[in-house]
Amino acid sequence: MTDLSELAKRRGFFFQSSESYGGVGGFYTYGPAGATLKQNVEDAWRDRFAVREGNIEIDAPTIMPEPVFEASGHLDGFDDMLVECAECGESHRADHLVEDNSEIEDAESHDPDAVMGLIDDLDLACPTCGASLAGRPVEEFNLMFETGIGPGDGQPGYLRPETAQGIFVEFPRLKEYARGQLPFGVTQIGRAYRNEISPRNALVRTREFTQAELELFLSPGFEPPDLSDVADVDLRLYPAERQGEGDADYLETTVAEAVESGVVENAWIAYYLGRSRQWYERIGVDMERFRFRQHLPGERAHYAVDCWDAEADVGDGDWIEMAGFAYRGDYDLSKHHDHADDSYTVFEEFDEPKTETEATVDPDMSYLGPEFGEHAGAIADELETLAKSDRDAFEGDAVEVTVAGGEVYEVPVEKTGYAVEEVTKNGQHVTPRVVEPSFGVDRAVFAVLAHSDETDEVDGEQRRVVRLPPEVAPTTVAVFPLMDRDGMAERAEDVAADLREAGLAVTYDDTGNIGRRYRRQDEVGTPYCVTVDYDTLEDDTVTLRERDSTEQVRVPIADLADELAALRDGRRSFVELTE
Amino acid sequence: MTDLSELAKRRGFFFQSSESYGGVGGFYTYGPAGATLKQNVEDAWRDRFAVREGNIEIDAPTIMPEPVFEASGHLDGFDDMLVECAECGESHRADHLVEDNSEIEDAESHDPDAVMGLIDDLDLACPTCGASLAGRPVEEFNLMFETGIGPGDGQPGYLRPETAQGIFVEFPRLKEYARGQLPFGVTQIGRAYRNEISPRNALVRTREFTQAELELFLSPGFEPPDLSDVADVDLRLYPAERQGEGDADYLETTVAEAVESGVVENAWIAYYLGRSRQWYERIGVDMERFRFRQHLPGERAHYAVDCWDAEADVGDGDWIEMAGFAYRGDYDLSKHHDHADDSYTVFEEFDEPKTETEATVDPDMSYLGPEFGEHAGAIADELETLAKSDRDAFEGDAVEVTVAGGEVYEVPVEKTGYAVEEVTKNGQHVTPRVVEPSFGVDRAVFAVLAHSDETDEVDGEQRRVVRLPPEVAPTTVAVFPLMDRDGMAERAEDVAADLREAGLAVTYDDTGNIGRRYRRQDEVGTPYCVTVDYDTLEDDTVTLRERDSTEQVRVPIADLADELAALRDGRRSFVELTE
Repeated sequence: MTDLSELAKRRGFFFQSSESYGGVGGFYTYGPAGATLKQNVEDAWRDRFAVREGNIEIDAPTIMPEPVFEASGHLDGFDDMLVECAECGESHRADHLVEDNSEIEDAESHDPDAVMGLIDDLDLACPTCGASLAGRPVEEFNLMFETGIGPGDGQPGYLRPETAQGIFVEFPRLKEYARGQLPFGVTQIGRAYRNEISPRNALVRTREFTQAELELFLSPGFEPPDLSDVADVDLRLYPAERQGEGDADYLETTVAEAVESGVVENAWIAYYLGRSRQWYERIGVDMERFRFRQHLPGERAHYAVDCWDAEADVGDGDWIEMAGFAYRGDYDLSKHHDHADDSYTVFEEFDEPKTETEATVDPDMSYLGPEFGEHAGAIADELETLAKSDRDAFEGDAVEVTVAGGEVYEVPVEKTGYAVEEVTKNGQHVTPRVVEPSFGVDRAVFAVLAHSDETDEVDGEQRRVVRLPPEVAPTTVAVFPLMDRDGMAERAEDVAADLREAGLAVTYDDTGNIGRRYRRQDEVGTPYCVTVDYDTLEDDTVTLRERDSTEQVRVPIADLADELAALRDGRRSFVELTE
Repeated sequence: MTDLSELAKRRGFFFQSSESYGGVGGFYTYGPAGATLKQNVEDAWRDRFAVREGNIEIDAPTIMPEPVFEASGHLDGFDDMLVECAECGESHRADHLVEDNSEIEDAESHDPDAVMGLIDDLDLACPTCGASLAGRPVEEFNLMFETGIGPGDGQPGYLRPETAQGIFVEFPRLKEYARGQLPFGVTQIGRAYRNEISPRNALVRTREFTQAELELFLSPGFEPPDLSDVADVDLRLYPAERQGEGDADYLETTVAEAVESGVVENAWIAYYLGRSRQWYERIGVDMERFRFRQHLPGERAHYAVDCWDAEADVGDGDWIEMAGFAYRGDYDLSKHHDHADDSYTVFEEFDEPKTETEATVDPDMSYLGPEFGEHAGAIADELETLAKSDRDAFEGDAVEVTVAGGEVYEVPVEKTGYAVEEVTKNGQHVTPRVVEPSFGVDRAVFAVLAHSDETDEVDGEQRRVVRLPPEVAPTTVAVFPLMDRDGMAERAEDVAADLREAGLAVTYDDTGNIGRRYRRQDEVGTPYCVTVDYDTLEDDTVTLRERDSTEQVRVPIADLADELAALRDGRRSFVELTE
């Protein structure tokens, strides 16, 4: 990991931000290589999970007002457990301390008092200064960043802890764009923020990160997905009941089998497990170091009914979560429906109109008023309730009504306006259910880098090579002049400019010898290098070198842009080119 | 404007965020049409200003620690003037109140006391409740959003008010990725935040927005740009000295002429004015409602030496700033060099090594110590200064040294270790100068929408049509079944799925009659519609309809994806297709 961080900083993938000012934990900047790699990963996600799935995409602000998070439950439930050292004042994540120093794996699911007890029992010490943490209080710490909107006292706002709320809050408008038809999916790629107590592990646990989320709104009747495109996709599953002591005991299955056997209960989740496996493979995650792990009951977020994580092993059994596939039920929409001044339901038409009888009352207040005085209103209300719940009560000449105080009144049925009518209903308002595939973009980038970073041997020498797939590599082609003389540099600059105009991602490099330039591009993941040499000046061809095989082939400059675009897009292989 | 906002909300371009919770000023959400339009504008910017220019791109956090903004000047200088109504408590932007209610156009450049005086003189009233604002204090209000990083007291952090600082702060690393060679450019597209006192005008003045910025680092010697590609680009300039009363008096010129005549002093700024004019035209800004306006001296930001804005008229002379092209000099890098623990300079090699003589001292402390006691150190320091500034002082047998207290000491030259040596220098450390083209992405989107939103007449009926260029339109093609019967819907769904697989942005719509569906797509800017009808079932062709001309042509389904991609990318025109 340290080794990857060193490469990442040296080659411009990522590095800790503001290091010139001492840095601040949990904030990373993507350098030129990393920013483009990340952008390519986002583009590939959009292509797969928005465009090709026919889902719509939105772009909401990262700052949202307080009432949103009161409704969503984040103000109350989005806490981590914190313990502060009495000696040095450093704060630590209490549950992680317990997990790191014992066999306990789910300290997160315990309450603060229990974790405080565990810290005492285990006699844990402050990792910073070594002082004992026994007896120190364990407190809930809310992970949202707070700020103030507007001048003066303004109003409190929070940086969103997940992009999802930007979608849920706007559901009343989004359902209109979807013309009220379930199911429909809404995606969003953007920043989210969590004020982690102890950020760690480079890009894995940061305070500011990028999510790519899809909220799929389904009818409560659950229209099944069309599994045909993913039925045969292999899944390596790690269900909750297999997670225990010892080596991981995986279930190797397929999407279709996982649904049929019920291991993955929700067919839509299974569909997206399949789609995401294909996608992770496409962007360069090694499928031998990839699995789907089901959450243990104590591990689930406050809104989740069931959840599977896509995980990658980024080094010697260090599994990181890259994505979560949660069934959120109707939690979010119901909460917003209750808190907000808008409707978070969808009108769902019945297949056939349904005719029902409906009992109603229309009390004669000119009788009830004089007769019952101040109780008349309560009696009228009670009559309405009674008509819905107990039609038998209206069978006789008079109805007995019990009001809140417990007193019983008798009302002649003819004064209640009681009637039973036939009503035809075309449908009903339902609260959609939500399946949420939620991807961490930074973690995907990190896993792809960790899995692409290799060492091999070329001409008897060790070579570090980052084998990024051409689709996501920051630079598609590097252009070199063999030497800076006899017009080779000018020619190479022209070649680079032409490739740029053709929309390719190009780097130009004329510093150091060719071997050193190749090594530089190998480390930054560039799949192809082009060298302008003396032959170029004679016959207008260049040397095209492939990163992985280090094989070379001569290509006419006239064909170069087309050939490189075809190689990048997978329409052609390098082997075909050499033949 | 109101009209556009209504369309924008109804068709999913943009709308005020969190309206279900009463909304909060200055935050907008892009719906499905707007999010994709914005993404396409960002992609077009990246293509032009990063990829094709050969500039590198980074992606930095939006939260940055306090010392960064102490150095950048934003903690002190990034204020707006605020006046609070004593009656209703509403805050207003004081300079805007003055400008809106008088002939004064640059109230912003006055100090708060002067603006307070103007409010008194003009006898201005609170726009909210009508109470007099005379005598109310005008205060500076810092526009940055503050938050706290980490648990407990943590440390203060701010949401960046411009993406630029993320680039400047990391200059020590970025120069390494550029291998220390000036000039080089660094771009960033991302969120920025300003806690505006009075957000207004939909996307134009929001509290959270997206910038696309380019910081171009130049040698103090100013390598000139290659103007050949933009020399003939037409520029409509509005220089500072032409800005006065009455109608705008523009200077119609070209990039080459503007540089030659010195109207645009900085050739790099002129280069980017040309590039940006081409780019705005490409994404759909109407060049008849577009100009470059030079900042008046009082209007410039605290870091700017010279600045031009790209402006668009979004309705009846309502000119909005879309981009600024500023010469920031060495302001930012010098500030960070002074404040941070790192070097913000570049080592620039001379064309030829320079040989200079350098005078040095190496005082004999075993003599100075006993002789001058506690003053020995100060005397040694002074000798070093003297050697650099006044070699003549060492001509005699003894040197006279004046220390801080004013006392004069005599030191024998032989005890100073004075020597003059020849030194050969290959270069020197310089602080690069910065030219900054800074684009507001939301404002570009807004201007493109305002300029594309038109009404024409089709078959004798008024039609609202948003003429977005195909490159940026959210949907490239909408697919309709003529009717939902005889297998047309299934066929149309297959066509839509195939077009999606080919990477096209596709909308499927089967609700309402065809005319209504065309109108819906016209309003959302979709350039092409495809209808599957009875003929399709016979001969595998579809009707392809163009938005602007409303002309139709039959196209074989087999050719559809290729034809549409060619139309979108401008490789083919619809007229060619009909021939």
